[in-house]
Amino acid sequence: MTWNRRHLLDIESLSTEELLTVLDTARGFKAVGNRAIKTVPALRGKTVINLFVEPSTRTRISFELAAQRLTADVINFSADTSSLKKGETLRDTARNLEAMNADIIIIRHSAAGAPHFLARFLQASVVNAGDGAHEHPTQALLDVFTIREKRGKLDGLKVVIMGDILFSRVARSNIWALRKLGAEVTLCGPPTLVPKVFEKLGCRVTWDVQEALRDADVVNLLRIQHERQRQSMFPGIGEYRAQFGLDRARMRGLKPDVLIMHPGPINRGVEIDADTADGDRSVILEQVTNGLAVRMAVLYLVTGNDPGFVRG
Amino acid sequence: MTWNRRHLLDIESLSTEELLTVLDTARGFKAVGNRAIKTVPALRGKTVINLFVEPSTRTRISFELAAQRLTADVINFSADTSSLKKGETLRDTARNLEAMNADIIIIRHSAAGAPHFLARFLQASVVNAGDGAHEHPTQALLDVFTIREKRGKLDGLKVVIMGDILFSRVARSNIWALRKLGAEVTLCGPPTLVPKVFEKLGCRVTWDVQEALRDADVVNLLRIQHERQRQSMFPGIGEYRAQFGLDRARMRGLKPDVLIMHPGPINRGVEIDADTADGDRSVILEQVTNGLAVRMAVLYLVTGNDPGFVRG
Amino acid sequence: MTWNRRHLLDIESLSTEELLTVLDTARGFKAVGNRAIKTVPALRGKTVINLFVEPSTRTRISFELAAQRLTADVINFSADTSSLKKGETLRDTARNLEAMNADIIIIRHSAAGAPHFLARFLQASVVNAGDGAHEHPTQALLDVFTIREKRGKLDGLKVVIMGDILFSRVARSNIWALRKLGAEVTLCGPPTLVPKVFEKLGCRVTWDVQEALRDADVVNLLRIQHERQRQSMFPGIGEYRAQFGLDRARMRGLKPDVLIMHPGPINRGVEIDADTADGDRSVILEQVTNGLAVRMAVLYLVTGNDPGFVRG
Repeated sequence: MTWNRRHLLDIESLSTEELLTVLDTARGFKAVGNRAIKTVPALRGKTVINLFVEPSTRTRISFELAAQRLTADVINFSADTSSLKKGETLRDTARNLEAMNADIIIIRHSAAGAPHFLARFLQASVVNAGDGAHEHPTQALLDVFTIREKRGKLDGLKVVIMGDILFSRVARSNIWALRKLGAEVTLCGPPTLVPKVFEKLGCRVTWDVQEALRDADVVNLLRIQHERQRQSMFPGIGEYRAQFGLDRARMRGLKPDVLIMHPGPINRGVEIDADTADGDRSVILEQVTNGLAVRMAVLYLVTGNDPGFVRG
Repeated sequence: MTWNRRHLLDIESLSTEELLTVLDTARGFKAVGNRAIKTVPALRGKTVINLFVEPSTRTRISFELAAQRLTADVINFSADTSSLKKGETLRDTARNLEAMNADIIIIRHSAAGAPHFLARFLQASVVNAGDGAHEHPTQALLDVFTIREKRGKLDGLKVVIMGDILFSRVARSNIWALRKLGAEVTLCGPPTLVPKVFEKLGCRVTWDVQEALRDADVVNLLRIQHERQRQSMFPGIGEYRAQFGLDRARMRGLKPDVLIMHPGPINRGVEIDADTADGDRSVILEQVTNGLAVRMAVLYLVTGNDPGFVRG
Repeated sequence: MTWNRRHLLDIESLSTEELLTVLDTARGFKAVGNRAIKTVPALRGKTVINLFVEPSTRTRISFELAAQRLTADVINFSADTSSLKKGETLRDTARNLEAMNADIIIIRHSAAGAPHFLARFLQASVVNAGDGAHEHPTQALLDVFTIREKRGKLDGLKVVIMGDILFSRVARSNIWALRKLGAEVTLCGPPTLVPKVFEKLGCRVTWDVQEALRDADVVNLLRIQHERQRQSMFPGIGEYRAQFGLDRARMRGLKPDVLIMHPGPINRGVEIDADTADGDRSVILEQVTNGLAVRMAVLYLVTGNDPGFVRG
């Protein structure tokens, strides 16, 4: 197992071996979550700051819990009441946090590249918790962790990512991780949101749901963020549901052992119906559990801990 | 002492023996609050989530402190910036938190029955921190704890609850707890807010303050939530104060050893005047202290700890 | 070393010896910040409450980290969603927090004197984190700590405080601390914001930047809070920058070993330009680091710990 990085900024720049190091380390931490005492003192006395300039309860809590279970001290910094509102630059905010001896700064930001920007001048570790439409690396890590746990491997699996690919950092990070681990990736959704240009990343692009789903081993449904998308790019909720929503009828055309995934929060009755979300092919809640293990692994590794040390 | 419950959802369904188990356990924890080191490692490595869909600083802090003193990890989840705003159902939010290995979910919600709803499908313990106008069980527990500590018993005591009974979860939980422990309960306030139907719960209902207060051992004043009540049901602040406010003059008609209680935050000069709130018959701040002990007891018991273990 | 205070309310009432006790204690804690494990269990089992009625991310986080490193339990109380909004008085809020066995209440409030008010009736320790335009004692402590660390002493040093003196609690606290430790203080800025009356505090007042800066050993630039000041008192951003902004050109007139300080958050291009803020004479980020050490020292001392115990 190899890990020499101080930051986790994206999936794109990780080697396959580094990806596997995170996944193997996370496997060890997952076992910790089932114990009566769920803490491991690997980050005792270290300070982790959740710098969430774009709000996110779910990811913030997952990182906060991961840090707590490693016995780090955690500070939540949200942009709402902060000095960023007083005109302070992101660089100054981050350097101030570092000057308070922060060991890890977890950043979510609406601007693509914000974590890379911080990593250029900070001594603290930087972990990307989602930057614009660029990457959301820990989401991809938990997704491939879940597939690997269920199927033993990624190599040769057919994974369909469905929905708004164009604006999705989850899709981008997943594409990188899946391709590096040998999966075949198909992107599907309305043409306005799934442009052909994604073929350059080594994916198949199709706008035909039936064709996409027919031989899928995994279907990863992205959230339709109807509150954000421009009218002109999106066909409307009802139409999306009719054309792309995964419901009971459409499930009948899928392989019996298909895995249904979703990064959450789900829109029941839009991209997925209740039967499918709660059905026996859904691994949506397991993804959440695995997210914690993956984030523990990331915090553990970027602070220079021994990747071979964690045992499940 | 008996306790076999995984949840604390309401007072209504508790047996008298279970009520006494919480009160006895809380007595042990109260002594902890006065020590230099106020922590007891009973919940070490456990995760407690404050899921406050309806805001409340006071109750949230009390639960957060209670969990910290049991050395649990605590996560605050407020609805403001959360996935609930993105259209996620309460059920999905709760199941997501559970998937992160939460051990206890403390929920406050504006909908009556929300905690019971969660308890139907969660493996985690659910603690009701106030659900609509239904119940607020830990408030009632701290109220009866306080009376019992001051008077040695509840049995046969005359307790008056005064104010907005109709919309009050505090009143409902108190009525259940007081009746189970043998107190005589009188409800008093404006007829629109204190309907006769409450007699079915075994209470006396009267709209005559003098009659209500004359032989009271305890007077529990509810907060007048003037910001919420509809104009038509409420006589106006000045009139309420004149008719029902507990002031120096009205105090003269009460028993010399009466206990004056209030769940807070108090409106000085509305339901209570400053002399009475700060007077020697007021136990309002002791209620706050006892709230911490009671909540420690609840978190301790719902996670399966031995009720006989805590010693004061 | 001497310390017998239960509160830190202001700098004005501290003796020189008490000031030095805080600074010496902070020196010991600063070394802790560089260790792999940054915690010292001096406040284990104690409860610290950040009662921030006026929002402040920076100071709140600094205090929160300081408390965590002393292994205290920390609760954040912000006024936004609190009972203060429901009409509760500050006194009642504070007494409620104390009733939950809070050991230290750190208060920031827009009203001058709020911490002193609390200290009159609370048993808990009160720490002033900024009260109106009155004082911000920990900011002054970290400022003099930084100067002393860089120069070995304060006595006889020429310190210029520049900007909005009239409305600045940072200026007032700094004046008290600097004067008690023997520094010569010059105040400079627009006449509307730097009235002659400050000479009564033992300072020189001048409106001539060149004269002020010529022989300065330290220049402490205050933030121009353009969002708050009334039009009539403030000459406009561009004009302020031209007249008082510390830029490369103006820096050439200063002593080569001058220290440039700023309490942050800085307005790049207003009171300071980027070259100066990031230049080798700037100690702005060191101030942030020292703030943590100073706040650890304050929390340590007000809870009755031995001032001679901490060793760097």
